[in-house]
Amino acid sequence: MVKDYIQSNKDRFLSELFDWLRIPSVSADSRYKGDVRKAAEFLKNKLSEAGVDRVELSETKGHPIVYAEKIIDPSLPTVLVYGHYDVQPADPLNLWTSPPFEPVINDEKIYARGACDDKGQVYMHVKAFEVMMKHNNLPCNIKFMVEGEEEVGSDNLGTFVKENKERLKADIILISDTALISLEHPSITTGLRGLSYMEVEVTGPNRDLHSGVYGGAVANPINVLCNMIASLHDENGKVTIPGFYDKVAELSAKEREALNRAPFDLNDYKKDLGIDEIKGEKGYSTVERTGIRPTLDVNGIWGGYTGEGAKTVLPSKAHAKISMRLVPNQVSAEITELFTKHFKAIAPSYVKVKVIAHHGGEPAVTSTESPAYQAASRAFQKVWGKTPIPTRDGGSIPIVALFKKELGLETVLMGFGLDSDAIHSPNEHYGVKNFMLGVETIVAFYEQYAQK
Amino acid sequence: MVKDYIQSNKDRFLSELFDWLRIPSVSADSRYKGDVRKAAEFLKNKLSEAGVDRVELSETKGHPIVYAEKIIDPSLPTVLVYGHYDVQPADPLNLWTSPPFEPVINDEKIYARGACDDKGQVYMHVKAFEVMMKHNNLPCNIKFMVEGEEEVGSDNLGTFVKENKERLKADIILISDTALISLEHPSITTGLRGLSYMEVEVTGPNRDLHSGVYGGAVANPINVLCNMIASLHDENGKVTIPGFYDKVAELSAKEREALNRAPFDLNDYKKDLGIDEIKGEKGYSTVERTGIRPTLDVNGIWGGYTGEGAKTVLPSKAHAKISMRLVPNQVSAEITELFTKHFKAIAPSYVKVKVIAHHGGEPAVTSTESPAYQAASRAFQKVWGKTPIPTRDGGSIPIVALFKKELGLETVLMGFGLDSDAIHSPNEHYGVKNFMLGVETIVAFYEQYAQK
Repeated sequence: MVKDYIQSNKDRFLSELFDWLRIPSVSADSRYKGDVRKAAEFLKNKLSEAGVDRVELSETKGHPIVYAEKIIDPSLPTVLVYGHYDVQPADPLNLWTSPPFEPVINDEKIYARGACDDKGQVYMHVKAFEVMMKHNNLPCNIKFMVEGEEEVGSDNLGTFVKENKERLKADIILISDTALISLEHPSITTGLRGLSYMEVEVTGPNRDLHSGVYGGAVANPINVLCNMIASLHDENGKVTIPGFYDKVAELSAKEREALNRAPFDLNDYKKDLGIDEIKGEKGYSTVERTGIRPTLDVNGIWGGYTGEGAKTVLPSKAHAKISMRLVPNQVSAEITELFTKHFKAIAPSYVKVKVIAHHGGEPAVTSTESPAYQAASRAFQKVWGKTPIPTRDGGSIPIVALFKKELGLETVLMGFGLDSDAIHSPNEHYGVKNFMLGVETIVAFYEQYAQK
Repeated sequence: MVKDYIQSNKDRFLSELFDWLRIPSVSADSRYKGDVRKAAEFLKNKLSEAGVDRVELSETKGHPIVYAEKIIDPSLPTVLVYGHYDVQPADPLNLWTSPPFEPVINDEKIYARGACDDKGQVYMHVKAFEVMMKHNNLPCNIKFMVEGEEEVGSDNLGTFVKENKERLKADIILISDTALISLEHPSITTGLRGLSYMEVEVTGPNRDLHSGVYGGAVANPINVLCNMIASLHDENGKVTIPGFYDKVAELSAKEREALNRAPFDLNDYKKDLGIDEIKGEKGYSTVERTGIRPTLDVNGIWGGYTGEGAKTVLPSKAHAKISMRLVPNQVSAEITELFTKHFKAIAPSYVKVKVIAHHGGEPAVTSTESPAYQAASRAFQKVWGKTPIPTRDGGSIPIVALFKKELGLETVLMGFGLDSDAIHSPNEHYGVKNFMLGVETIVAFYEQYAQK
């Protein structure tokens, strides 16, 4: 009957979500500040409509945090739901087949920025809560903490958590911001990578120069930046920053074997990405390269003339955004410092280098033994008819480590997305089926968890 | 009395030039197409006011060519003046201290895009012609050919020249589009570098990816592009493209010694550019690196997220504009082909590479023995009281080689700019003194040349 209710309200659930997706809550771009707040207000209203006791926008130095709670009986266990209502920038816009903030359904998938990451997944929890309220079968207390700065490093959530430990008291944290292996192979994420996100500036001459008059006699900051970036990996795909791997937790042969048992088809993988060959750290499988190994990627680079046609300029500056994904037991602040020191150390005398740290986050591993994980596993078993596979996810939800540290709480990462959902890319989408099954599985989780 | 006339008309000369500089004739950017034509019309009108027999806009596939002539006596020698009225793009705009298309005089210098390259220098010829007409002392025939596509490779001038050989008959070509060593050390350019301008695109995955989900397992096209660019130079600053140096004309010890006799102060050079160290091909001086050695520079690079804040994207594509300066006897088309072949050859199997050629031009060396060079030398002697030093310029005026080939004509490169004029850069400027002395020296050239 829960299932019937979810099915018969499908259209309303989706049209509500669409209204939310239409608000461009891009946290990285200050031009959208007003929209980010609108998105928070929208969630606040939906939560109170669904029947929480109290809900508020908690102001921060940046974007507000939506906090809500429903306490049915203090003696019952409490689940703290975390998510984020901010989204990644939508560019490059020209690659979207439909406008990023005008959601449409195509081939049973919702296309919009934030459809999966993370508005779509957060909204499953709002609707699961509505379902349980409507059926009077909410079996435990719920708290919601949904932030608007996850895509820019959750700068202010740490302070909020530290200052609200009493209010945030709970037994477990539940997050839906990760992906399943596939609809055929449900999975639960048990590991996340950390992050250090840097920006570098290389300055050569004090002004843009004519590449004819000066070319060959003055160092070109773009060429120099390319040399420096190239030197950050060796021929085996290892990062060359001294000390980078010192704290990396090596898995046992048994653990690695278990990890590699997860279904993975390299040909499908390459086909989906349109590549002939994969590339990564020597000696590790693709699953391991994204799951248990740290990496370094250039996320953006720019310098000189990038317009139409040809401009023979020897530019003054070149820039790059470079991020590193971290694994247990690397520490973001330490890696940030190692990078900064190394990048300055390898800068040749004919350029000047600036390095700034954008944001970071710690890696995390969650237990498969906890009652909450077991409840989540049973919930999948019940709704999907399959036991979910524990996986290591390559992405980062820095907040998980913070919760462990500040609140002493374990997290269950019960995400329903797919790696192919193109989050952070043009044409981000989220399966309608994923959304609907998600709502059902979340309701089942509470039922199972209350029984523990 | 010529001098007096020039002095007493200084303000008018400059205000006319300012009107011309206000027209943003950026040939590389199609949005300025209309302005480029306006700039051509402006020149046409000024030439007819100055007294040419006939002047016309000759249409091309691209921007029009302004052609004008004054034939006083077919039996007298004819000077063909070449220049260009198009300008480089003005970006990065934010680095200009005054708007690029609102000329102002600061510290006796004209600040505006095109102030020196090449509107300011072309306008000296228009005014020199006016002077000679007013004083009835034009000693030979003059033809003007001023194009609007020099900054984008003079794509259509070649056709124009081939189709108008009769009309362009002359004894010498005179061009002011180069620089003096300094006001204290007048010089005449006797060598120019050629150019091959390429654009490359490196494609990894078929869409932008989440750098957490895929980072470490899929080749990042930006990192790959950086590796490829880094590999284009060896540790001695030599270009690694096979065959790149095969045709480079090596100068004799005597020629190199003569070249290095030109006044050059490395400390002033570094101070002017704000750099601690210079960087270039091992075994050559700065004068040689820009004068007689070929080079490779990245003129622009872009890929991934370059906006505000942080976006954890593993991009699908990365791009770069890469140009090579060529010296005798390299051939632009051959170097373009060598680059293309090499760049594709070094592309790893996990990316796809596209290479397109923007434009090229041939290097050129002009004789110091020709009557025209001798006349130019005497003109400097007369106006500046010093014999000009022959120099090799690092820039390119591809058309010089074309004139030699198609019209069989020698060129005299009598330029009055300074390397510090920041052409192709923000805050391009041109000394008022350079402009005024230029007009005077050009008039003196005709006087001297007619006497040969």
